[in-house]
Amino acid sequence: MKARRPNPNLRQSSHKKGSAIPPAATGKDVSEKAMRLRSSPASVAAGERADGARWIYGRHAVRAALTNPERRWYRLVTLPKHQLEARALVSSAQARRMGEGALIEVLDHQGFRRILPDRVVHQGLALAVEPLAEPDIERLLQLADRVPYRRVVVILDRVSDSQNLGAVLRSAAAFGALGVVLAARGAPPVTGALAKAASGALESVPLVRVVNLARTLDELKDAGFWVCGLEEAAHQLLTALDLGPRVAIVLGSEGGGLRRLVRERCDYLARLPTRAEHPTLNLSNAAAVALYELLARR
Amino acid sequence: MKARRPNPNLRQSSHKKGSAIPPAATGKDVSEKAMRLRSSPASVAAGERADGARWIYGRHAVRAALTNPERRWYRLVTLPKHQLEARALVSSAQARRMGEGALIEVLDHQGFRRILPDRVVHQGLALAVEPLAEPDIERLLQLADRVPYRRVVVILDRVSDSQNLGAVLRSAAAFGALGVVLAARGAPPVTGALAKAASGALESVPLVRVVNLARTLDELKDAGFWVCGLEEAAHQLLTALDLGPRVAIVLGSEGGGLRRLVRERCDYLARLPTRAEHPTLNLSNAAAVALYELLARR
Repeated sequence: MKARRPNPNLRQSSHKKGSAIPPAATGKDVSEKAMRLRSSPASVAAGERADGARWIYGRHAVRAALTNPERRWYRLVTLPKHQLEARALVSSAQARRMGEGALIEVLDHQGFRRILPDRVVHQGLALAVEPLAEPDIERLLQLADRVPYRRVVVILDRVSDSQNLGAVLRSAAAFGALGVVLAARGAPPVTGALAKAASGALESVPLVRVVNLARTLDELKDAGFWVCGLEEAAHQLLTALDLGPRVAIVLGSEGGGLRRLVRERCDYLARLPTRAEHPTLNLSNAAAVALYELLARR
Repeated sequence: MKARRPNPNLRQSSHKKGSAIPPAATGKDVSEKAMRLRSSPASVAAGERADGARWIYGRHAVRAALTNPERRWYRLVTLPKHQLEARALVSSAQARRMGEGALIEVLDHQGFRRILPDRVVHQGLALAVEPLAEPDIERLLQLADRVPYRRVVVILDRVSDSQNLGAVLRSAAAFGALGVVLAARGAPPVTGALAKAASGALESVPLVRVVNLARTLDELKDAGFWVCGLEEAAHQLLTALDLGPRVAIVLGSEGGGLRRLVRERCDYLARLPTRAEHPTLNLSNAAAVALYELLARR
């Protein structure tokens, strides 16, 4: 086991406090994106398929997007039977409306098939949106300074499955994690499928993509985080560690575990109390159990 | 809250002890299935696609199937670069070999695409198998009598996603649950995708499909199980309950929660300590956290 570093709270850097996460885009960004998207709602009726990044679907994901003041949306598409719900959602929306024209468009199942990828479960609601601006690690650290309870950041080294990432975001929201950090390479893009799997959590959990994960771990350490890698072969149980008020929990890929460069950056390695015959969990299941242990269990 | 029933251990029925789970198929079954499958390995070379139930793929799933004495297999298909691994797997196999001909067939990626569904992650290994015989609730109760530690059965009311079901099986294996029970209607069949998501757990965790889930809950109660439904609106935390040595934990569908008939059968309703703003977890994440709490955490 590695020696404990000096109390990291004493070495905490003085990050500027300020803008919320996710930050508002600049005016230039908005107008450029609006230009690009303005043609999209029109093309819905013409039968063109928007790419996944532009449509959010599913009841929870759409509702959460419309109640997120940082979100910009264009129009809500609904099946006839969900019209009342759609009107209620729109009338209480806090997201910022972009573009012009009808707020709500009623389509049948055939219409939904034209605008969404095959076989998605849209639950009769789809929302045309701009992507959220993704925060950087600096902003996550600013947020950490404003949170009065234990800060836990989930670090995913080499996540490739959007269902898994969505479920991790959902657990992060449910247990109150500060945010989720991804090694950018190979990570799933933000699509409607990811938003659906996150069940609304995409609107509230900061999702940070970084190119150099090892450097990010160093930045987190400098900001007072203990970095703990989850690894089935570790000697210690996660429950046996006292990780203090700032914790970064690192999960490797399903197949390959933690990369060497990432493992070497960890202050601790720990495992969950799984059986020797079946030591591994699905990635999002492992993250959920770790977050439960670190944040929610009393 | 409902009143506690009299100590259910006093009313425990005397189930016959006997065959292991999953049970061996009858001789007739075997020969019928063998007849059906005998044509399948031959058709691999001819480019026909086997249905998902006949192929198990992915390193962990294939390895677990070959080490399961209850499993019957026909041949192992491998990419050239995994030939050595394939030979080692076959030479230590405990599963029963069926059929004749070569034990190992080397195919290229194109060949794998012919035998497996599109876009699956097969990791260079696929195994032609007979499905396992699925145990019934009687057999699960027999197993409960032989287990020296806490027995936890996971009950899934209306699971529809094979990724979720696979992850639940995997967590059940990792934390030592007795088995998983499904309401048969709408539940995913046992496919290669399910086996892959279960990462080997399909071979060791009894998976019971029942037509009448309410009746099954009664049978479990008669056998001394406390039945606890997980519901976000419940007043009590799961951690606050003393559920004794036999627990059935019931999870509803992602969208609709527990059905009324199922909820009414529960001795307890409990929730996980999630935040009010984001109370729900992905189904398999909720199951993992509950199993961790009930079986593994000290």
